[in-house]
Amino acid sequence: MIVVTTDHAAHDPEARAPIEGRRYWEVPARADALLQTVRAAGHALRPHGDHGLDPITRVHEAGYVRFLRDGFAQWQQEGGAGSALRPGAFAVRHLDRLPRSAVGQAGYYLATLSAPLLAATWQAAYDSAQAAVDGADLILRGERLAYALCRPPGHHACTDLAGGFCYLNNAAIAAQRLLDGGTGPVAILDFDVHHGNGTQQIFYARDDVHYVSIHGDPATLYPFYAGYADETGTGRGLGANLNLPLPPGTRDDGFVGAVQHGLEAIVARRPAALVISLGFDAHEGDPTANLAASSEGFRAIGAALAGIGLPILLVQEGGYLVDRLPANLTAFLAGLGAR
Amino acid sequence: MIVVTTDHAAHDPEARAPIEGRRYWEVPARADALLQTVRAAGHALRPHGDHGLDPITRVHEAGYVRFLRDGFAQWQQEGGAGSALRPGAFAVRHLDRLPRSAVGQAGYYLATLSAPLLAATWQAAYDSAQAAVDGADLILRGERLAYALCRPPGHHACTDLAGGFCYLNNAAIAAQRLLDGGTGPVAILDFDVHHGNGTQQIFYARDDVHYVSIHGDPATLYPFYAGYADETGTGRGLGANLNLPLPPGTRDDGFVGAVQHGLEAIVARRPAALVISLGFDAHEGDPTANLAASSEGFRAIGAALAGIGLPILLVQEGGYLVDRLPANLTAFLAGLGAR
Repeated sequence: MIVVTTDHAAHDPEARAPIEGRRYWEVPARADALLQTVRAAGHALRPHGDHGLDPITRVHEAGYVRFLRDGFAQWQQEGGAGSALRPGAFAVRHLDRLPRSAVGQAGYYLATLSAPLLAATWQAAYDSAQAAVDGADLILRGERLAYALCRPPGHHACTDLAGGFCYLNNAAIAAQRLLDGGTGPVAILDFDVHHGNGTQQIFYARDDVHYVSIHGDPATLYPFYAGYADETGTGRGLGANLNLPLPPGTRDDGFVGAVQHGLEAIVARRPAALVISLGFDAHEGDPTANLAASSEGFRAIGAALAGIGLPILLVQEGGYLVDRLPANLTAFLAGLGAR
Repeated sequence: MIVVTTDHAAHDPEARAPIEGRRYWEVPARADALLQTVRAAGHALRPHGDHGLDPITRVHEAGYVRFLRDGFAQWQQEGGAGSALRPGAFAVRHLDRLPRSAVGQAGYYLATLSAPLLAATWQAAYDSAQAAVDGADLILRGERLAYALCRPPGHHACTDLAGGFCYLNNAAIAAQRLLDGGTGPVAILDFDVHHGNGTQQIFYARDDVHYVSIHGDPATLYPFYAGYADETGTGRGLGANLNLPLPPGTRDDGFVGAVQHGLEAIVARRPAALVISLGFDAHEGDPTANLAASSEGFRAIGAALAGIGLPILLVQEGGYLVDRLPANLTAFLAGLGAR
């Protein structure tokens, strides 16, 4: 297995732009812990390359990408003060015009308080996406398993909307890269505990990317406004979107069973490759969620994946119990038989 | 002139649930200052009555009203801690499902950080709406001028969405009350410095309420996502919505001229009565806005209104320079010749 690493440390909202009472759990120490784990296990590491904006704008809208890149500087030019651009007003229903100012665009392009724009955010998100592209290119060159150790994560990012720690949808960018490389239809299996509303939205009307998500029931868990079982795709994409929401407190048996069910649905469609949105936040006690899986659950999921005979690209998403990330990743890779 | 007062003091987000770095300008002292002004001037005061939920649900969606009424208690039952329910994730584009939990519904029904739900919010919003209904009933009984001293304000509240200090749309509720009382078509003139996106949305497809708003350009000023000049109504309502956005720094001449222009448009449609969304936040230095009107501007607007020969219901909206509210209201009422 080859691991592609990212540059991310300067994107640190918790240290540089904290909000009282709302801890920002998506911290640099997460990626550091994962990196130490794969390094200690002897996996081959390589830094990300630079493939430019093209792979990003294949799935993201140009105006949105421009805002992520230039919004912080524009906001400062408008007189914005502070270390983070974070909206207080949001473009919810009935509110759909795109304002000219960065302070207004913030609430149009950023859907949550947990996706602020710092001076370093664009570079970190860009590098994270590049790592995902590198991972896809490894698969295109014949690798059977690659791991893009992405930070910040991506699966909440829509074509034109950030949210929930996510800015650019690394997994979607990688899936599109595979398609553009000629693989034929691919699948994305997302077992981050939060529904990957961005990935769903990006591919909702398409049949060349089969999206399957296992997650906590959005009735009570972020992202709240998408991720229900009756969201099955639209148009050509009808039937290519499968959501398997789980009740609060679900333990390994229910969690692993749902992932296996999702994997069976994927195998039935015979994709050319599989992208995994790899989250460890279904673990019991994760501060952002409400399921109760364990490292053994992640080991079992790894084992299930080992048996399907598809090239697999792992793209890192969530997981906020930093102390448990090494054990969870180790168990998952052991189940997968990764070397 | 008869003034209907409201009970509002317990809805005090700045004192009871402050956010560091985001001062909540909509404070009880605003209404207190206005009340002292009319009391000192010898106007007849009366407390609001209670007309129940019916006048409210004539313009607001039932599920939204239920959330405003029960959402705080439900959130506490879900284990929510703190003195205010304030969302961190919002139902922006692509995110349109209504979750079951109060913590999720918060970001569906509340569009800004400046519309939290406190224990006392529903009662204050309900009473504020009742004052507007009383004001409408006074007009229906033949009064030529009445003033609903509403707090919290209302014009940002849509059929199913709170935002910008507003929960129930007092002016819209009053306009509907007039219609239901048999007046025939009415007009709403809104010169609060922020566009009344809620009032616009509520009546956007209707021709029995002519909505005219003079406000700071939403390209750079809240509500950002609505209030542009090309929003002119839809269906039967086409042509019954007029937005007159003004550039930052506009002074009395530009501001009063735009209000006069709007008033001419209203008079041309010969409404039976006029509801004024009365904001004083176009005043220079208002902490929430960017225009530069003065008390003399409000006096001139009052004088323009005095000449049109329509029954007028004043409904209080914004104005956040508390020290300037007495002078602004006094000048406006003097221009209007109010007694």
